[in-house]
Amino acid sequence: MSDPLRAPMPGAESLTDHLRDRWSVSVFEPTHTLDDTEIELLLRAAQWAPSAGNGQPWGYLVAPRGSATHDVLLAHLSRGNSGWVPRASAVFITVAQTAPDPDGNGPKWPTYSYYDLGQSAAHLTIQAAAMGLAAHQFAGFDHAAVGEALGVPEWWQVMTGIAVGVHGDPASVDPVDAEREQRERIRKPLTEIAYAGGWGQPWRR
Amino acid sequence: MSDPLRAPMPGAESLTDHLRDRWSVSVFEPTHTLDDTEIELLLRAAQWAPSAGNGQPWGYLVAPRGSATHDVLLAHLSRGNSGWVPRASAVFITVAQTAPDPDGNGPKWPTYSYYDLGQSAAHLTIQAAAMGLAAHQFAGFDHAAVGEALGVPEWWQVMTGIAVGVHGDPASVDPVDAEREQRERIRKPLTEIAYAGGWGQPWRR
Repeated sequence: MSDPLRAPMPGAESLTDHLRDRWSVSVFEPTHTLDDTEIELLLRAAQWAPSAGNGQPWGYLVAPRGSATHDVLLAHLSRGNSGWVPRASAVFITVAQTAPDPDGNGPKWPTYSYYDLGQSAAHLTIQAAAMGLAAHQFAGFDHAAVGEALGVPEWWQVMTGIAVGVHGDPASVDPVDAEREQRERIRKPLTEIAYAGGWGQPWRR
Repeated sequence: MSDPLRAPMPGAESLTDHLRDRWSVSVFEPTHTLDDTEIELLLRAAQWAPSAGNGQPWGYLVAPRGSATHDVLLAHLSRGNSGWVPRASAVFITVAQTAPDPDGNGPKWPTYSYYDLGQSAAHLTIQAAAMGLAAHQFAGFDHAAVGEALGVPEWWQVMTGIAVGVHGDPASVDPVDAEREQRERIRKPLTEIAYAGGWGQPWRR
């Protein structure tokens, strides 16, 4: 995906293409759909992520635009996400198992459930990039209401939605959503995230 | 990376190459080293991952084999990891900010810190795959001791190590470590992780 409308990622120019071209699109094309083969491939990427002790503490609720699951999500989006999310071709609602089930099966360390789910979600988004699709993760929706409506057990925790689709025409949407995806992309400098010798000592000055 | 010694990943054959070829090597070549340009590129991948509110609640302690940081880690590895980890070219120790710093800056929702760190770590490992390197994450080491020795503040939490290097000769290592990387690779079926309509209803039967 090479899109002249994409805001630059300074410092990321040498990354492998699917990381370099990854882009949190906020203007999705509302007529595009994903077929089951494409959805399965995205789920396979999530499925094959690594996890602590191969525990795989992740679940996905698949919500193609127009499905009953999608309707549930739309009813509970935050105001800020209610404009752009509905246009995506599908949303994958991510869920982490954070406590054992009634039979005692489940993660011993819930913090790794979140870490592992984040990895699995990242694999899904990178597979999307490899397929020429854009993915945009969001957390702004009523997790408890969505979890209740979809019957998520209390030992699982709804975490994010991953909106997937293709880029649409910015002129066709509310300027707020068109502006959202053009915001300057900023990251902390490496000197503030990568240390060596001891905490706070930049890996390379 | 195409390695006939790699255990198969059934169902993953159609994934994009860096996901399909990703492999948690346990036999690293102990003479291989990473130069600073390679380490920087791996860190850039981690740096440019997405995160909730762009909070970037991640830190990395860079430990090339033979460095002082590496020595600290080696002193605190679990027994199971003490054989294979030391041979990797470098280990990236991952750390999540889970509480505000003394100035009040930091994450409001610690669970997303773990999720975001997991994503950032996944981006690093996929960049490694794109560079022909193998990465193997592990959690089995004394996190508190490593954190204390390296001065990690109490509002950050040591989570994992990411061992990075190239595949070595299985005949040169303890059979336990050679066997580790040849274990059958198993994942839950999609019917147990992907639902639609409601929890427990397989997305596609």
